[in-house]
Amino acid sequence: MYPLPSWVYDTVIYQIFPDRFHIGKGLKVENKRELYEQRGGQIESWEIPPKATEDNSHCKVFYGGDLWGIIEKLNYIKTLGVNCIYLTPIFLSPSNHKYDTVDHFKIDPQFGTKATFKKLLKECKRNKIRLILDGVFNHVSSQHPWFIDAINGKKEAISLFTFFKDGYVGWYASKSMPQINLENTFVRDYVLRVIEHYLTIGVDGWRLDCGHDLGPVNNSVITAKAKEVSSESYIVSEIWSYPAGWNMVDGIMNYHFANCIYAYLKGEMKNVGLALETTYLETENIYGCWNMLDSHDTERLATVIENKDLRKLAIVMQFTYPGVPVIYYGSEIGMKGGKDPECRAPMIWEEQKWDLDLLNFYRKLITIRRQEPALRFGSFKVLSEDPLVYFRRAPYPLHNMLIAINKDSIEKKITLSLTDSKLWGGHFVDLFTKEEFPLVSGTLRLKVKAKSFAILKMRNYTNQGYDQYRRIY
Amino acid sequence: MYPLPSWVYDTVIYQIFPDRFHIGKGLKVENKRELYEQRGGQIESWEIPPKATEDNSHCKVFYGGDLWGIIEKLNYIKTLGVNCIYLTPIFLSPSNHKYDTVDHFKIDPQFGTKATFKKLLKECKRNKIRLILDGVFNHVSSQHPWFIDAINGKKEAISLFTFFKDGYVGWYASKSMPQINLENTFVRDYVLRVIEHYLTIGVDGWRLDCGHDLGPVNNSVITAKAKEVSSESYIVSEIWSYPAGWNMVDGIMNYHFANCIYAYLKGEMKNVGLALETTYLETENIYGCWNMLDSHDTERLATVIENKDLRKLAIVMQFTYPGVPVIYYGSEIGMKGGKDPECRAPMIWEEQKWDLDLLNFYRKLITIRRQEPALRFGSFKVLSEDPLVYFRRAPYPLHNMLIAINKDSIEKKITLSLTDSKLWGGHFVDLFTKEEFPLVSGTLRLKVKAKSFAILKMRNYTNQGYDQYRRIY
Repeated sequence: MYPLPSWVYDTVIYQIFPDRFHIGKGLKVENKRELYEQRGGQIESWEIPPKATEDNSHCKVFYGGDLWGIIEKLNYIKTLGVNCIYLTPIFLSPSNHKYDTVDHFKIDPQFGTKATFKKLLKECKRNKIRLILDGVFNHVSSQHPWFIDAINGKKEAISLFTFFKDGYVGWYASKSMPQINLENTFVRDYVLRVIEHYLTIGVDGWRLDCGHDLGPVNNSVITAKAKEVSSESYIVSEIWSYPAGWNMVDGIMNYHFANCIYAYLKGEMKNVGLALETTYLETENIYGCWNMLDSHDTERLATVIENKDLRKLAIVMQFTYPGVPVIYYGSEIGMKGGKDPECRAPMIWEEQKWDLDLLNFYRKLITIRRQEPALRFGSFKVLSEDPLVYFRRAPYPLHNMLIAINKDSIEKKITLSLTDSKLWGGHFVDLFTKEEFPLVSGTLRLKVKAKSFAILKMRNYTNQGYDQYRRIY
Repeated sequence: MYPLPSWVYDTVIYQIFPDRFHIGKGLKVENKRELYEQRGGQIESWEIPPKATEDNSHCKVFYGGDLWGIIEKLNYIKTLGVNCIYLTPIFLSPSNHKYDTVDHFKIDPQFGTKATFKKLLKECKRNKIRLILDGVFNHVSSQHPWFIDAINGKKEAISLFTFFKDGYVGWYASKSMPQINLENTFVRDYVLRVIEHYLTIGVDGWRLDCGHDLGPVNNSVITAKAKEVSSESYIVSEIWSYPAGWNMVDGIMNYHFANCIYAYLKGEMKNVGLALETTYLETENIYGCWNMLDSHDTERLATVIENKDLRKLAIVMQFTYPGVPVIYYGSEIGMKGGKDPECRAPMIWEEQKWDLDLLNFYRKLITIRRQEPALRFGSFKVLSEDPLVYFRRAPYPLHNMLIAINKDSIEKKITLSLTDSKLWGGHFVDLFTKEEFPLVSGTLRLKVKAKSFAILKMRNYTNQGYDQYRRIY
């Protein structure tokens, strides 16, 4: 296993679907009409939600978001407290999602130019915001020059794909996304050149699309190349399974975590503590995994959990479980949205439509997550299933934290045994309510209100120079 | 244990003793005479080697090196391939070594101003060179305001030190370095403010002087503060013992390693492989430890090992054993020097006096060390004691490396069993001679010339698109 880039421990990621985030330079999509229509696309106004079509033609509906738009909104992202953005694909591609790449070395002109991208990189660095790109290497677009050559009968191009009598293998049988032969040295070298190029010019990491399709070998080969460039390169793979075992990458998108949380909050999973602790113990690269509650591939958080109190519990768990919290653009202001394409609606920028209470809640959690050593790299141990209480233990005892979750409609009380032999006295303090809970011989009596939570941090007793922890480490 | 900052894996450090490195702005020490004499110092010309005095007055002999000098020589350091500098103390202090601090928040005017320091930081960042400072917290100078207050009878100041009937406790009984009471909350808060301040303005890490005197508690408390600032802060402690167990810091100065190597090359330690492997296995933070062969506190490498062939073997081991290679300024050009103060002679800048063969050897090793994943974060296993052969195994099999050391005057042959079940065919290639050694069913026949070494990297056989490792990870 590779060492995890240390910056990842301190990171909160914001996922952006570029066509739907913001149009830069004060433009409307109408001003950019030609960029879309000349390539067979349709434009749509920012206020109209995307709708599914049976023939998938909704993938050719464009709202006009671009890299300039992202640059202009970096300040919003920074104010949120986020220090990393992950962009879904930005390379030349006919669709709005751009998961069908035509040229990995070209920024799609709908999003900007190479210069726009360099400007984005520069502005990110200036604002201390890391940048993660989305690499699609399981398949290419049917408009990729290789595939056009293959269709035209070029032998060496045909060999890059898998043709059968009546067609060719596409991702999930999609004709627009022919799978490429990653065991072909030419193809693999190309993929590695892409990986290396963007890391070398300053990108901080890659999210690998279709990680399961890539398989362990390609995940491994790609990560090896990324680490050749720098030990600080970060590789996360799209894997929807139980996360353990994928340790040839730095982490995976932990959809398993999201599903456990959802099932728990719906009352369908009883021993969520056991599930979370087993996952933690078995997943060597858990600190590099993404704790996401939604993405461009799922229903939005606010649609899955309408009740805001319960939703906040999910978010607390997202920010306090080992791994990197990833916020899907718009979910921080309460945007709703069903399955793709509903979850890919344009970002709402009218502040009067924002859920400000929710936004402030996110801001506070982001601050805490970025500050607290126990949440960044502490260990994880469940102390109680009901209410759910877990212990985040840091190398230094006074950094220790406790998280308590009560999803039920009645207040709960519990006495906990804290498994750290260097803790006896002092208090755990609720970082939201400021309430204090005294430690007595390493035990703690806790009260958690109905449908509520507590994020508690160890606080030492000091008075007039007396410090009971002065000789403790 | 804290996660090691990932940048540390890719780092080679250059240690600078600022009074003896370079005088900036084209000045000679004579031009700066007043800066030294007004504070009771003497100046000395760059060409005159330092000499020990019984009364330690040699600690007041100054050669005029300063931060401007370092800034002007960053290009030399960069050309060397080094990407981090460690400066012995630079804060206000009456001595030339400045291990007796008067004010941790003030750059000693002999070295420059706050602005000079900021300029150094900025130039380091521009050149992608990290900066590590030396923090002295076991004691202060007897000219520190606290100690003057104590001498003047101020109760709260007296309590910061340990007075006895006829004196006070000093480091190794030195009267100029009174020990401070680190269990006093005021003192500890001060130390932590120093640590935090410099990390916040952009310093990358601290070397903690007298780590053993500080003890586990203070090493731990300081590291906890550094990690609060960022997971990328790097803390290394001066510990002269066997390195295992000091895992409240990111690493220690591994003098134990240097002594093993020296004893081995002198024929005094027979099972150096066993010693190195045991150290590796028991030292959790081995990748953060410093592999140094000399420092301001020891004889110089070229004085300990005059024979250059043997010296090169020591250097090869320094660059291929897990941990961070640290080059003591001047040793890369073959400077000699006995115990302190002889080892602190001014840097030689006349290129005709350099050992260019040695310098190029260092350059090549630095390049290899910074490029190769196996050397940066691979595991360590000894495959043979005589010749000494060790295996640096990386997460990706084709990154694997072997290092062979033959200190004797006859060529040696050996067949090795390579403990990686994903290796069978291909070659190991000597990165210096380009000689190839074929793998046969995971075994390798190796030849190492007398008083020589081999640094070998796995190379795959590929031909016309055939790649025997295409499905291996």
